[in-house]
Formats: sequence, structure tokens, C-alpha cells
Amino acid sequence: MIPFLNDNFLLHTETASLLYHGHAKRMPIIDYHCHLNPREIAEDKRFRSITELWLGGDHYKWRAMRANGVDERYITGDASDWEKFQKWAETMPYTLRNPLYHWSHLELKTAFGIDDCLNPESAESIYARCNELLQRPEYSARGLMRHYGVELVCTTDDPVDDLQYHRQIKESGFEIKVLPAWRPDKAMALGDPKSYKAYIGRLSEVSGIDILNYTTLIDALQKRHDFFEENGCRLSDHGMDRFYDDTCTKAELDAIFANVMNGQTPSDRDLNKFRTALLHDLAVMDAKSEWVQQFHYGPLRNNNERMFALKGPDTGYDSIGEDFTAREMAHFFSKLDAERMLAKTIVYNLNPAANTMVAAMIGNFQDGSIPGKMQFGAAWWFLDQKHGITEQLSVLSAQGLLSRFVGMLTDSRSFLSYPRHEYFRRILCDLIGNDVENGEMPVSELPRIAQMVEDICYNNAKRYFGF
Amino acid sequence: MIPFLNDNFLLHTETASLLYHGHAKRMPIIDYHCHLNPREIAEDKRFRSITELWLGGDHYKWRAMRANGVDERYITGDASDWEKFQKWAETMPYTLRNPLYHWSHLELKTAFGIDDCLNPESAESIYARCNELLQRPEYSARGLMRHYGVELVCTTDDPVDDLQYHRQIKESGFEIKVLPAWRPDKAMALGDPKSYKAYIGRLSEVSGIDILNYTTLIDALQKRHDFFEENGCRLSDHGMDRFYDDTCTKAELDAIFANVMNGQTPSDRDLNKFRTALLHDLAVMDAKSEWVQQFHYGPLRNNNERMFALKGPDTGYDSIGEDFTAREMAHFFSKLDAERMLAKTIVYNLNPAANTMVAAMIGNFQDGSIPGKMQFGAAWWFLDQKHGITEQLSVLSAQGLLSRFVGMLTDSRSFLSYPRHEYFRRILCDLIGNDVENGEMPVSELPRIAQMVEDICYNNAKRYFGF
Amino acid sequence: MIPFLNDNFLLHTETASLLYHGHAKRMPIIDYHCHLNPREIAEDKRFRSITELWLGGDHYKWRAMRANGVDERYITGDASDWEKFQKWAETMPYTLRNPLYHWSHLELKTAFGIDDCLNPESAESIYARCNELLQRPEYSARGLMRHYGVELVCTTDDPVDDLQYHRQIKESGFEIKVLPAWRPDKAMALGDPKSYKAYIGRLSEVSGIDILNYTTLIDALQKRHDFFEENGCRLSDHGMDRFYDDTCTKAELDAIFANVMNGQTPSDRDLNKFRTALLHDLAVMDAKSEWVQQFHYGPLRNNNERMFALKGPDTGYDSIGEDFTAREMAHFFSKLDAERMLAKTIVYNLNPAANTMVAAMIGNFQDGSIPGKMQFGAAWWFLDQKHGITEQLSVLSAQGLLSRFVGMLTDSRSFLSYPRHEYFRRILCDLIGNDVENGEMPVSELPRIAQMVEDICYNNAKRYFGF
Repeated sequence: MIPFLNDNFLLHTETASLLYHGHAKRMPIIDYHCHLNPREIAEDKRFRSITELWLGGDHYKWRAMRANGVDERYITGDASDWEKFQKWAETMPYTLRNPLYHWSHLELKTAFGIDDCLNPESAESIYARCNELLQRPEYSARGLMRHYGVELVCTTDDPVDDLQYHRQIKESGFEIKVLPAWRPDKAMALGDPKSYKAYIGRLSEVSGIDILNYTTLIDALQKRHDFFEENGCRLSDHGMDRFYDDTCTKAELDAIFANVMNGQTPSDRDLNKFRTALLHDLAVMDAKSEWVQQFHYGPLRNNNERMFALKGPDTGYDSIGEDFTAREMAHFFSKLDAERMLAKTIVYNLNPAANTMVAAMIGNFQDGSIPGKMQFGAAWWFLDQKHGITEQLSVLSAQGLLSRFVGMLTDSRSFLSYPRHEYFRRILCDLIGNDVENGEMPVSELPRIAQMVEDICYNNAKRYFGF
Repeated sequence: MIPFLNDNFLLHTETASLLYHGHAKRMPIIDYHCHLNPREIAEDKRFRSITELWLGGDHYKWRAMRANGVDERYITGDASDWEKFQKWAETMPYTLRNPLYHWSHLELKTAFGIDDCLNPESAESIYARCNELLQRPEYSARGLMRHYGVELVCTTDDPVDDLQYHRQIKESGFEIKVLPAWRPDKAMALGDPKSYKAYIGRLSEVSGIDILNYTTLIDALQKRHDFFEENGCRLSDHGMDRFYDDTCTKAELDAIFANVMNGQTPSDRDLNKFRTALLHDLAVMDAKSEWVQQFHYGPLRNNNERMFALKGPDTGYDSIGEDFTAREMAHFFSKLDAERMLAKTIVYNLNPAANTMVAAMIGNFQDGSIPGKMQFGAAWWFLDQKHGITEQLSVLSAQGLLSRFVGMLTDSRSFLSYPRHEYFRRILCDLIGNDVENGEMPVSELPRIAQMVEDICYNNAKRYFGF
Repeated sequence: MIPFLNDNFLLHTETASLLYHGHAKRMPIIDYHCHLNPREIAEDKRFRSITELWLGGDHYKWRAMRANGVDERYITGDASDWEKFQKWAETMPYTLRNPLYHWSHLELKTAFGIDDCLNPESAESIYARCNELLQRPEYSARGLMRHYGVELVCTTDDPVDDLQYHRQIKESGFEIKVLPAWRPDKAMALGDPKSYKAYIGRLSEVSGIDILNYTTLIDALQKRHDFFEENGCRLSDHGMDRFYDDTCTKAELDAIFANVMNGQTPSDRDLNKFRTALLHDLAVMDAKSEWVQQFHYGPLRNNNERMFALKGPDTGYDSIGEDFTAREMAHFFSKLDAERMLAKTIVYNLNPAANTMVAAMIGNFQDGSIPGKMQFGAAWWFLDQKHGITEQLSVLSAQGLLSRFVGMLTDSRSFLSYPRHEYFRRILCDLIGNDVENGEMPVSELPRIAQMVEDICYNNAKRYFGF
């Protein structure tokens, strides 16, 4: 009987333990994709309570509480911090086997030194202890990042963002690099003409370019792309339902753009045409800047219209779509490759039924220019749990080169999510340790194997992104 | 070397054994979805032979025999009971690793006390022993239900059914509750105008409502829904290829209905429109009655036209479809939720490629009103085997709250299928036991963990369905 | 700690070891689907270097090298044999957890007696040792086939092939049977009118039938089918993106054919119609000849247009498609079955998301005429690795009769790929051994279980194909 969350948590062999404790654990964290608020880092935010830190914006926990029959008042409503925490503590034992159970306890342990299980009996003392510690300066936003050995994070930023907080952070001499990442999703969101027009207005303003048609839209975006580049950006990111593949003249693009600006909702076909062209041209910008481009595809968002009206987006009502898109993805990358404009690329899928397809697809565009140019991204969102991480690593191993993998990221809004790197590293070391002890990897290659672990945890990302 | 089917069958840790023998095993069975014939319970049917009981209607076994090269005469044809049994006994050793091998031996052991493996050598003595025991009164339909600790079953019934056998059973004072469940699939089956017209005639008759259009169709169904309610029904069930999503005026619905009644086969679009509306209105009935609604989606039925002509439906020629339907499912539930007419819901998918999608989708409609309102259904039909059950439990664990799961059902036509609950419970306890001993669940929470096991086996269903 | 690739490689229990060493290992190899060049067997080709043998045509290795950042010059370019080998040796340690790591080391060990790991340090000595051994006569094409205990192989041949090398091999008295297999993919490839016209010209020539329309096309193909039959062919094979289902008059078929011959690219619908008809009629030929028909469906080919222009097909730019096709597959088989023209059939899918669908689908067409008439094919191409093989065996076990499985094939262009049979057999024995020791299979049935292993490795294929 192995104690819960002990030193060898998830490490079932001696080799796994050796790989984790001797190698993985001591590598710094490069969190190359997250949703931290740069302002909170700039201002070195202090947290009034564990409720704010844990339950303020975490839709994973919100979904679990709703599934457990907790009233919305205690989730996103006006209940007090203590009431909300209490409801969460009641929910915790019901999350056994859900990643939240491991994540939350890892966070309690690694940030607050708490080994007790959170449940209704321990709620009060854990609440008090966490809140007490949160008063200490080392529990600020920056303090937590330091505590977890973070070396660099990339936030997720809109092209219209002035990146003032990124500049403030840099100027403050903060030893952890905080870089912006370019996420131009709103420039692709023609489906809602009213919001789109407002966004284009804002983009015209910050770029200083009067956006009148497709060409000037691209000019404005390129100007912001340059601005991001100047501010240290090294990667882009796209959130998409699927890939797009259509052909379209410039005149058509201008007409579609004009219609949307006039308030007309575009047809599905027109949307598809416009997005095909725009995503391609955004990809070309990334290639020219030698950035890494990321594609997060596959969600079905805002599925609950009642709650969307009440709470808005990103409140726990998104899930997984079934838009299969292999052919479009192939054409998208092939065109860029033919133009020699295919940037380093990471593809993340949300529907695990596409895992093997994606891992095999990227192999068609490995061009020998650098190791692991095309990456099958780490298990994402609903897949970011032991089963999903194991699957991603297994599929990547079978279809490509695990050794060239750029590894884990948190994708999180929280300063407490860094134990997800620990979680990932433990699973990685366990898989490899098991292979070694089973005779599926040679012990004689252990130094290389250890190097591979360190590479996946840190070195590969450092080289790949050019940090 | 662990003996086959011993006390710790499928239980690989001490904790698993403790959870199963100390907790899971002693919970009564609530079989909330099955296809037992209520008449056989009402009449307390006796079985002339193990062939009748085992091979009379079990298309799982029929498929295995066909795959093993057995002539149809010995499967659904005019061979004698002994000849059929003999062919099944010949087939048995060829089913190693198929769930039939485990199910059949569990049934022999738990119902007849037979520990021998069924094969050509043991066939004669096992046949004799089973048939001898079947003469005893305790081997009647009711006897078998008592033997397995069944507390309640829900059958599957058409809206036109008069439920006379359910009433007879109740009046007979049978201590096991036998409730009807509402399955209005035939009301959705507009694709075959001739059968549909006949069905509508029958529905008019039993409801006393002259069905002239969509509105009176709903009135008639509502009247039967009320009748089912009076007879103790607590849940509905829908067998569907996929979900539907279209918009339609009442006038269009009436026109589609009229055309079908006039013998016209509806277009795919019209079918889709009609089904969208009707499934929605049926769901509203369930919400108003506070029933649980079940959706079994994803089969592709009657794939062998030659054998369909010879043997009819449900004879082993169905399999798994590939109609991906996330968007339609989201819209269907969202509309109901917006109207506050979303009943407690269980979704079962047949294609395992949709597992994670479904488990994530239902999370969008957990509204905090009761724990586990939306359920990711137990592994169904082709997935009801060790691999499939493990997957369903793992996906549910990762995407939702395993602890709130309403657990297993047999979905069976046979009085011998209750060991499937044992099979499920053993797999459940093994997964959890393994987690505890591996340090992935805290031993300190063992009382809660044991409670969770009991809840999944029995308490959750009891509370959820309001039995 | 189990040594890498030792005698019990992949065998984790004593029973697994017993089943492998006592049974699986000693069965001859029937490689019923491969892409060996019959000319190389006829001429008993000698290999100038391990580079020619390993890297001359193996797109698996090419993809790995590209993913590892190796320049194309060292892959398919004009670098020397040693340079190419050196780059491969550099790549090898980066393929840890990829099947190439196991395959390559198994090949070094079983063909060359080399136990060292291939890496930059060992590259030179391994290169020298392999090349030295390749000078020996027993390392010729035929020598390698003898070495691995091959009894029979089926190559993959176009209907226009004159099969001269097959005849030469037969006449030479080579004790290993080398049979042709019928792969009429080019007759289905109407999408490219220019190539199609050329192909039809060639087919007219070799068949002696003037192909003027659909009927004469079928006549010509039938004549070649007869010719293949005379030359010992026992099975066909079809490489397809998906299955087809449409209806079409003979007049339409003739019109589509005429248009293509006139250089017109057919519409998608017309392609679909033509392929539906032609694939059906080809299947009827197979049924009449009592051949086995194979369907390999699901790739998305030639995804990189730049590299396709440079290197042509089959150079490592294919991957996995997402054309879901359950309904079309059902109709295709149902029509043949209704006509009593459904030959013995093996279906291989490339997208693992279709595994369970396919394994269940074939069950609809098991007709009791022979055991295992319909086969769920062995894990193919991207799935031919430990994870994929395990999944195929598990899904087949759950949905059908593993015991009737016709087992493994290499699908390879190389004379060194026979260890893939060993790899498969070890995985198979490990799964079964584990079940026996876990109490999931009865020890009392061990003789039958051992027989099942031998059957899957050899006897089933021998009987099924009628070799």
C-alpha cells in the first residue's frame, strides 16, 4: 500500500523514481502557453483568500460543483469566500478519480505544505491555513512563480493589446521572463458582425491603419505582429473548431469583409473562404518571423445558451466537437509548405478520437530542417489528465519521436497550476521507467534516456521556441 | 496463478477484494433498463431447458456461433434443444477473451453451481444438470430474480402497451418491483409509412384520441404518458441513430404527418424536422413528470438485408454507426434547458469514439439542482465487456464525477443476465482498489471510498430514479 | 530489471513464455500480404549494404529521420550508403518508444546476431559487421526468407502484370511458395483521366480485349483475374480511402467511362457511382473464384504536394484519413451477401477510431459457412506497433472470435521484416498468458489455449486461404 501523494506518487518502478527525482524534477519550468493575466504579474497580485485563487476563475472546479448538485450561488454567485470554499470542500471527496482530486491536493501540498485530504472535516483548518499563508509576501503572484521554479511563461494576448503590462514586468527586472503570445481569434470571428465591426475599429485604432478591405486588414495585423515581435513574442496561437480549406479571390474576400462590416451575417461558405485565406496569411506572418504557430482545434463552445446569457463565455459550458478535419488540415499545411512558409507548428486536438490522425498527419510535414519541427501537442483541456496524458505520450511515441517533444504547458489562468508540470513529468517518467524495467528499453542507454527526460521537460522547448 | 472465476475473479488487490466482498457484493440489484418480457414474470415462467433460457433470444451468442461457422439451423432454426446446446458448447472454447466466455461461466456458476468449463466434453453433463435444476420451482423467472437479489427492474414498453402484465405482477404481491419504462420509438419511425399508419391507428385506439395531426399525436402520447405514470413508470428510453436539430413550423409538422399517413415516404430533411420536434416534446413530457430520460444512440441496424428478410429485427445483424452528432446533441439539450424543461438525463453512446465527447457534453447541462443530473450511461451493448466497462469508468472519472454514477443495468432479455452486475462491480472495485494501493487514492478516505462503491452499485440509482 | 530484447522480450508471465517458446515460435510464417518485389526473389537478390536493405525503400525510417531534423540528401538523396547509415544511427536513439526501435534491433539480432544497441558509437562496427555478413550467400533474398522460416508469401500485383517472376520462381523449384495477389487499384483510379487512359490501354493490350465501355472493362479484368488464378493467386486486395455506396445504370457507367477516356475529370458523384459498381463487380469475381478479398481503407495519401512533386508516391507523405464509412460498408457487404456473392473478407482500417465499428460490422456478415469468414484485419501501417496490435487484439476479442483470427502479415517491402511476426506473436502470447495467470482464462483449458495460439500464428491462415 503506497501512501497517497508520497514522493513516489505515480512512479511505480525504481527507474521511474530515479528518472523523476534525479532528472525531471530539477528542470526549470517553461510554461509556453498559459492564460495568466499579465496585469496580475505586473502588479504582483496578492490573494485575499484561497477561494479567490482557486475558485475565482477555474471552470474545471465549477463544472465539478455543478455536477455535484451545488447551487450556482456558491459557484459564480454572491456567496462569501468561506461559503464557496466550503461547498468546494464538500465536493472534493466526490471528485475521486477526477484530475481535480490530484491537482488540488498537489497544490495544497506543494504550495501550502498541507498533506491532509480536503473534505468537509478538514475544510475549516485548511481554509484558515491557506489564507494565513497567502498573507505572506512569498505567496504573491510572482512569489508563487518563483516557488515553482518557473523560468519563462507565455501569456495569451489579442493583437489589439498594448502589452503595457508585459513591458512593465520587463522593466521591473522580474527575473522570470513573461512573454506575450499572439492570439488573433477575434480577427477570424466574422460570424458576429456587430462584435467584429467593433473589433476592426479597435484594430484600426491601435495599428494606425484604416482597415477598408482584406488587404488593409492584413496590413494592420502585420503591424501588430511586428509590435508583438518587438515585445518578445515568439509564438502564435489559434483557437478553432476545425481547419478550413476553400479557394477564394481577393475580390471575394473584400466583398465578404464589406458585407460583414455592413452588419450582414456571412454564409457558412463565406466564413469558410475568409478563414481559409486569413489563417493562411497569419501563418505566413509567423513563418516570416520564425515564430512557432499553435493550433488548438476541436472545441464546441457555449453549448448552454441559458447560462451563456447569464455568465458569458469560458464559464464551464464548453466541450468537445466532432468536426473531423484531416483533409483540410493536410491542405492547409501542404500549401504553406509548398510556399516554404510553414513555420514550426504545434497541433493540439480536443477530441481524442483524432489523436492518431494528428500524430500521423504532422509527420507529412517534417522537413528535416530542425528536429521536431512539427509537434503533436500535449494533452489539452479535457484530455489533460492521467489517462489523456498517457494516451498522448503513447500515440506520439508510436507515430513520431517522443524524444523531440517540447512537453507540457499549463494552459491555466491560475498561479497555482504549476504542479501540472510535476504531474506530467511523473507520468512521463513512469512510462519510461516501466519500459526500461520491462526490457522494452535498454538499460545500457540509460544516460540517453535520462537526457531524453530532461529534454522533454525543458531543453527541447528552450531550443524549439528560441527562448 | 489465480484460478479461473474464483472468489477474487477480476480483483487484483486486497483493497479491491475488500471493496467487492465487503460492500459491492451485498448491495441489491436495481436493473433500471432491461428487455425482460413482463408476461414471463407475470406468469412466473418455467424453462424447459437451458437452451431455451440461453439460446432462445440471445443474439450475442448467435453472432458468436455464426462467426464460428455454425449453420443457422442450429442457431435460430429447427434443430433440437440438445443439438443447439451442443453447437454452443462447441463454440464456447472459441469465445475465449470474448465477454460471452465470462458471462456464460458466471451464469453456470452462480445459477447452477457449475464450476466446470463448458466445452464439447462437458456439454452433456452440464446440459443434464442445468435442465434438472430448471425443473425446480426456484428456477422459475421469479425464482431467478430472487436468487440474484434483484430489488427492482424496469422493462421496456411501447406507449400502446396496456401494461396488463405489470398490473398483474403488482397485484400478485411479487416482492420485486417490476415497473414499465416508456419507449416511444415507434412514434418516431415515420420512415416506413405503412407501419407508421398502422401504429398511429393503434395509438388512437388505446388513447381514445383521434390522431389527425401533430397536435393530436402529442395529445395521444401525453395521455399514454399519464397512463404509464399511473402504472409506476419513472423513466423513458429512446433508441436513436443520432440526435436531431432542425427548425420547423407546426404547419410543416402537420404536412409531414399527413403525407406519411397518405403513404408517402418522407425526405431525410422532413424526417429530421419531425423528429427534432417530436423528441423535444417527448422530453418535455418527461420533465413535467420528473422522469429520467434515457437516450441510447449510435447503432446501425439491420445491416444484412438477406437475413433481415428471413429473421426480422434484433437477430444479430446490428452494429455500430458513425453518425457524429455533438452539435445536434448540444442544441437539443440547450433548448430544453433554456425552457427549464430538461429532465434528468442518461446518454448512452454505442461508438466508443464518442465516449469522451459525450462525457464532456453532459457537463454543460449539470445545473446544480441535484447531484449527477446528467449521466454518462454505462457501457452499452457492444461495449458491455471488460475493456468497454473500464473505458466508460475511466472516461467518466476523468470528465465528471464517478461517485455520482447511477451504475449498471443488464439491457438484457434473459433472467440469467444478473451476473453482469457482478461483473461490473468487480471491475469497478478492481479499478478503485488499484488506485488506493498505488497511492492514487488516500487510504485515509477508505470509508468514503467504500461508500462511493455502495452508492454506484445501488444508492445512487435508488435516489436518482426516485424508486 | 529485465534485459532489453532478451528471450522473454514482451513476455511478462511464465504462461506467456511457455506459449511463445513452446508454441508460437515454432510455427512457420505465412506472410499473406506483403509488398516484396517478386523480381528480387526470382533473381535471388544480394544486397550491397545494410543501407540498401534498410533504408532503400522504408518510408517509416525516412519519416523518423525527417522528424529528427535530417536533411533529405541523407534520406532519399545522393549521400553515400555510409553517410545515410550514419544519419540513421544518429536517429536511432531518438526513436525510443517508436516501433522502429524494437523492429530495427530485432532485425539486427535475428538476422545478424548483433545484440548491441545501434547509436552513433556503435554505428561503424555494426555497419561493417552487417555488410560483411551480407556478402555471404545465405544473406540473399531467398536466404533471408529461409532463415526466418517463411513458408509462403503473397506479393501485391497489378492486373496488367505478366507475373513472369512468379513463374520463374516456381519453375526454379524454390521451396518457399511465392504467390501473386490481385490489386486492381489502378482500375478504380478514374480521378486522373490521363493516367487512367494509359492504364486502360495497357490493360487492353495484356488482356487482348478492346476496352470500349464498362462491360468490356469488366471482361478484360475478368480475363486477368483468370490469369492470376492460373498463376496461383488466392486473394485480392483493395487500397481505398473509404467504401462507396451509390446506384447507377449501365448507361451511366458507360458515359462516365467514356468521359474519362476523353480526358474529362469526373465529378465526385460520378467517381462514387463508378467505384460502387466496379468494386462490387470485382468482389463478385473474387467470390466466384473462392478467393479471399482484402480491403485496406482509410489512408489520406500524398499530403505534401511539394514532396510529391519531387519524390512521387509512397515516400512517407501519407497518413490517416477521417472519412467515416460505416453505412457504405454495410450496404456494400449486404448487397453481395444478398446475391450470395460475398467472398471471404478481411477489412483493415487505418483510423483506430473505427476499430470497434469494423470489428462489430463484420459480425453482421458471418454466415456460418466457415469459421471466421469475415475477418477484422491485423493492425495496419500506422497501427502496426505494440499499442495498435494490443488494441486490435482486444477489440477483436471483445467483438468477435480471436480464436479464428488469421493473424499477422508484414505488409512490407523488405526481406528483413519477418521479425514483425515475432513481435506480434510475443504480444499475443503476453496478452493470453496474462489472462491465464490472472484467472481470466481457465488453466484447465491450457491445451486449447495453446492450440489457439498456434492457430492464430499459422493454422487459421493456412485453412482460410486454402494454401
